[in-house]
Amino acid sequence: MKIIIVGATGTMGKYLAGVFETEHEIIRVSSKGGDIQADITSAESIENMFKQVGPFDALISTAGPTYVGPWAKMGNDEFWKGLEGKLMGQVNLVLIGQHYINPKGSFTLITGALTNEPQLNFANASAANGAVEAFIRAAAIELANGIRINAVSPTVIEASPQYFPFFPGEIPTTMQQLEYGFRKSVFGAHTGKVIKTH
Amino acid sequence: MKIIIVGATGTMGKYLAGVFETEHEIIRVSSKGGDIQADITSAESIENMFKQVGPFDALISTAGPTYVGPWAKMGNDEFWKGLEGKLMGQVNLVLIGQHYINPKGSFTLITGALTNEPQLNFANASAANGAVEAFIRAAAIELANGIRINAVSPTVIEASPQYFPFFPGEIPTTMQQLEYGFRKSVFGAHTGKVIKTH
Repeated sequence: MKIIIVGATGTMGKYLAGVFETEHEIIRVSSKGGDIQADITSAESIENMFKQVGPFDALISTAGPTYVGPWAKMGNDEFWKGLEGKLMGQVNLVLIGQHYINPKGSFTLITGALTNEPQLNFANASAANGAVEAFIRAAAIELANGIRINAVSPTVIEASPQYFPFFPGEIPTTMQQLEYGFRKSVFGAHTGKVIKTH
Repeated sequence: MKIIIVGATGTMGKYLAGVFETEHEIIRVSSKGGDIQADITSAESIENMFKQVGPFDALISTAGPTYVGPWAKMGNDEFWKGLEGKLMGQVNLVLIGQHYINPKGSFTLITGALTNEPQLNFANASAANGAVEAFIRAAAIELANGIRINAVSPTVIEASPQYFPFFPGEIPTTMQQLEYGFRKSVFGAHTGKVIKTH
């Protein structure tokens, strides 16, 4: 299976690429580094990435920049800008990628527990997650040719302890739990599901 | 109680204004008509609206423009533009309005069943709804001075039968069910809740 991993140089993407490359062809996509560079806040950059990759069987996204910061500084500009990555970037991976993906292929996007379990400073990420989760349910009934779409929703990632202080009470998601979430989406038959690792 | 109704000339807003004005002071806000005009896709226009209204006790939003159209025509431009109203407009009503609302006031935004029950052509609205629902949960833990925030989620509105063909299988929400949803948010003690009318 030819699998694109967007966000392949990040903590999650690097791990998933390492696990899946033993059995599959992995195309590592990242803003810097990887096999192909792409800026997911740019639809043009995403289109160029797909043109370079050509037909593929699965896309995994672990790329989710959002605005994180105190509520007092969260105005229109910060909030709107914060939606360009995890929300619009991931939506564009699907809207554009559907023209390049093979029949019966799959998209798996990343969301997170913040959809339902908010934390201070992360209102923008909550909104992005909620949007992506509703979007994958809607996309699942629109996509043609047996193409599937799901989201994986982890809590704070165990391999990123620097974030633990911002997620009090969240039991961290292990890399294996994360991997199994993506396995269920990519190699299973689900569509329109939010796969919680927790 | 001084209540701002944004979207006051629409089907939902007009009904709610009529019901609540028997006991409360209602400020009707709309893009055209009403007591005050505001374009919710513009943060500047929202700020001007709040300056004109002054301190208030509750804001009800029934304003939710989104992009509706076939999946094949849903590209970056349509999707992004479609997020300016129901998503970013309603977020801005809160981010800006928090500086004008009285202590113990409330914000009540509008979402809809599309968050969890997608329909063809409405993927953008699903995403906007999902974002707003996650946002109100996050805002509920950020807002100070006892200010509350909730969302009301109706299905297709009974008084808008022209939309019935696009929502097969959805039992329409009556105007009274809608009213009771907003009553629960505005006059109750909930915060961070999605109040389903269905």
